[in-house]
Amino acid sequence: MALIDQLIEALRVLPGVGPKSAQRMAYHVLERERVGGKRLAEVLAQAVRDIRHCARCRDFTETEICAICASASRDAHLLCAVESPADRLAIEQATGYRGLYFILQGKLSPLDGIGPRELGLDQLDNRMGEGEIQELIIATNPTVEGEATAHYLAQLARRHNVRPSRLAHGVPLGGELEYVDRGTLSHAFGTRSEML
Amino acid sequence: MALIDQLIEALRVLPGVGPKSAQRMAYHVLERERVGGKRLAEVLAQAVRDIRHCARCRDFTETEICAICASASRDAHLLCAVESPADRLAIEQATGYRGLYFILQGKLSPLDGIGPRELGLDQLDNRMGEGEIQELIIATNPTVEGEATAHYLAQLARRHNVRPSRLAHGVPLGGELEYVDRGTLSHAFGTRSEML
Ligand SMILES: [Zn+2]
Ligand SMILES: [Zn+2]
Repeated sequence: MALIDQLIEALRVLPGVGPKSAQRMAYHVLERERVGGKRLAEVLAQAVRDIRHCARCRDFTETEICAICASASRDAHLLCAVESPADRLAIEQATGYRGLYFILQGKLSPLDGIGPRELGLDQLDNRMGEGEIQELIIATNPTVEGEATAHYLAQLARRHNVRPSRLAHGVPLGGELEYVDRGTLSHAFGTRSEML
Repeated sequence: MALIDQLIEALRVLPGVGPKSAQRMAYHVLERERVGGKRLAEVLAQAVRDIRHCARCRDFTETEICAICASASRDAHLLCAVESPADRLAIEQATGYRGLYFILQGKLSPLDGIGPRELGLDQLDNRMGEGEIQELIIATNPTVEGEATAHYLAQLARRHNVRPSRLAHGVPLGGELEYVDRGTLSHAFGTRSEML
C-alpha cells in the first residue's frame, strides 16, 4: 500500500475520524504542516511508550508520581475523586481547588465487569487509612452509574472517618462533567455539600 | 510541560482539531489505542520524511514516480488535470478512468502569487510536447479560479494539438469536486465535452 494510504488508514485510530477526514488530515499535514507533523509523530511515539498511571492518583503521567501528587503546595487534607483525567483537567482549569485528586479511570459498572478493583478502590481505601485525608470530594458524573459510584465512595470514606462531599447541584443531570462550562463547574465545586 | 499536554498541543496541527477534541484524541489513544497510536506515530514520521511529489504527475508519493505513472496498464493517450491529490483520488474511486493524471497542486490565483510556474505548467507543457497525449481532460473545480485555470490549460493543450475536454455539467457550480457524490462525479466524467 502506498505510504499516503497507510497514513490515511493509521489516522483513523483517532476518535471521530472517518475516511474523508483522515484523508483531509493527511493531505493538510503533507502540504502545509510537515514540521508540525514530525513533532506530532515524535511526541505520540514517546507518549504511547512512556505515559502510564501515576502510582498515587492514577492520572496519566510519564513519571512515577505526577506533578500534582508530587507538589508540596497542594493541600493533602483534601482528595477529589473523578472518573477520568479529562474531568480532573476540567476541575483544575475551572476552580481554585488546591487539594489532591484520585482518578478512578471509570465508574462502577458490574455488567461490564468494572468493580471496585478495576477503579483502584483498594488503593483509595489504603490511602484514606493513612489518616491525612479529611474530606473526599466526590466529583463523579451525575449519571446512574456515577451516582452508584458516588455512594460506594461515600461509604468507603465514612469507614475511615473521612467526610464525603459532592459537587452542588448545577451540573446538568445526565450531562458529562467534561463538557460543563467553567462558570457552572466552578460554582458547583464551590457549593459542594456534605454527603449525609 | 507534561508529556500528555505536549501530545494534546501537537495534535492541534491536524485540521479541524481544537483544544477539546485534541484532548479527547490524546486520552482515547492512551486509554484504548496504544498499538494504533504507535503505528500512527511511525507512519506519520515516515510520511513527512519520505513523501514528495511524483516527478511525472506531481501527486504525493514516496517513490520517484508514483504507482499510476509507473503502471504499464494505464492509457498514456489520456491525461487528466486536477487541482489536488484529493480530486485525483475522487476521480479514481468514482470512475473507470484508465488514463494518467497531472496534479496542479492548486489553481491560477495571481493575487496569491500562484501562476503557471507554481502549478508546474512548464512541466505539463513539455509533457504535451512529447506527442503521446491526445486528450487533456481538465477536471479543475467549477469556481472562478478553477474556470480561469481550465481556460489556460485548454489553450496550452491546443498549442500542442491536444484535444482539451471538461467534465460535463452535473458537478454543482461553486462546489468542490472532492465532495461530489460518486454517482454524479462518475456521470460528469463520462459525459465530458470537448472544449472548443
Ligand atoms: Zn498523581
Ligand atoms: Zn505520478
